[in-house]
Amino acid sequence: MRYKAIVSYDGTNYIGWQTQQNGNSIQEQIERVLTTIHKEPVEIAASGRTDAKVHAIGQVFHFDLIKDIECENLKTGMNALLPKDIRIIDIKIVDDEFHARFHAISKRYDYYVSYDILNPFINNYMAKESRHMDIDKMKEAASIFIGTHDFTSFTSSKIDPRKSRVKTIHKIEILEEGNNIHFILEGSSFLRYMVRMIVQTIIEAGKGNIEIDTVKDMLEMKDKHACRFKAVPQGLYLVEVKYEH
Amino acid sequence: MRYKAIVSYDGTNYIGWQTQQNGNSIQEQIERVLTTIHKEPVEIAASGRTDAKVHAIGQVFHFDLIKDIECENLKTGMNALLPKDIRIIDIKIVDDEFHARFHAISKRYDYYVSYDILNPFINNYMAKESRHMDIDKMKEAASIFIGTHDFTSFTSSKIDPRKSRVKTIHKIEILEEGNNIHFILEGSSFLRYMVRMIVQTIIEAGKGNIEIDTVKDMLEMKDKHACRFKAVPQGLYLVEVKYEH
Repeated sequence: MRYKAIVSYDGTNYIGWQTQQNGNSIQEQIERVLTTIHKEPVEIAASGRTDAKVHAIGQVFHFDLIKDIECENLKTGMNALLPKDIRIIDIKIVDDEFHARFHAISKRYDYYVSYDILNPFINNYMAKESRHMDIDKMKEAASIFIGTHDFTSFTSSKIDPRKSRVKTIHKIEILEEGNNIHFILEGSSFLRYMVRMIVQTIIEAGKGNIEIDTVKDMLEMKDKHACRFKAVPQGLYLVEVKYEH
Repeated sequence: MRYKAIVSYDGTNYIGWQTQQNGNSIQEQIERVLTTIHKEPVEIAASGRTDAKVHAIGQVFHFDLIKDIECENLKTGMNALLPKDIRIIDIKIVDDEFHARFHAISKRYDYYVSYDILNPFINNYMAKESRHMDIDKMKEAASIFIGTHDFTSFTSSKIDPRKSRVKTIHKIEILEEGNNIHFILEGSSFLRYMVRMIVQTIIEAGKGNIEIDTVKDMLEMKDKHACRFKAVPQGLYLVEVKYEH
């Protein structure tokens, strides 16, 4: 039986989604708990990775169980055994063909930057910025990224060279909410560091550190050294993964 | 020269305000930083302690420096050296007689309880409650505590028996804000655990676990074993300390 689960997590204390040799990952916490409940090893596959300290409101993963377990019981059992900063929001049974990564049609990421630099409670949840950002300049910079582009300039230089760097961004909204700037990015899928590099480039344009034409040039260069900006992970949230029905 | 400072902190990673033999206290972080800047040992005195994991929006402390340091420079220097979860909000020079504890005339504490039990981001910042709380019952229970009473039933059994347990509570507001219940308590001063024990007693009344008359009896008993309720520290914030001018 194949299950699809939605999970929300505070990434502060984790090395990221994916299990690595050192450190505590979200994936290993969930696999450990599922294996305990199922009494047989369980492996999970997510819609994609999130980096260390990055959060999720609605990450999606799938897994197969040999035994039948009722979804509501599985959710309750998992939440009882998981650390409180990882919460299973929903579980349902899906078609055996469903794949959390390959069948995702779009993703939404949100990013928060706060002017409230003396607030000690938001360090793990938002980036902080003391310099004024020009919201109109930021929206102009953001518009450059909309559409289908080769995003080689806006990803980690270490990613697999055989993988396509052509992605489609559907929208980038930039909202002023009290002392915070709230970014909403939606796209087909995103390369490693792509959201954080784009967000910081927009911020640098907003602070007047770079011109709009420079942003255009950076994108057109398709050069892994073109962008030296990357927003801190704490402000980033994977909000939603969409699938066709 | 005597200085009065206002500090805001996220108490999650601290054993509380006061320095103890084991663990990391907010007091020792601030004294360490002041001693570094002043190049002479500095001791600080707060309006009162906060317990492990309890937060502050506006804790107040005072200290003396032999050397004259301009307030804005002191604030900037301290924030540069302090951990980011402790932020100095304001510093000013005060009369040599000023005392952060003895001259405080009232304090405000806020407490948050959330129904949003699947939210992984609030574990360190709010209590969680899955059972419905009757807000009218809670307001009725809260009204019992208003005024001047002997609060022996609502404090740690370990506090100094020579100290008066007679305190005055000016108000307890209980607000429904989205998925959260927000308590605002103001009083002359509070005994150890007093806010948390009163808040949890009000919650138990709201859940129907105890009657309003039981709350009255508990207060009237003036017995250190009368109340077995204590809200978790994570939901508690020292918001403001007021002084006469």
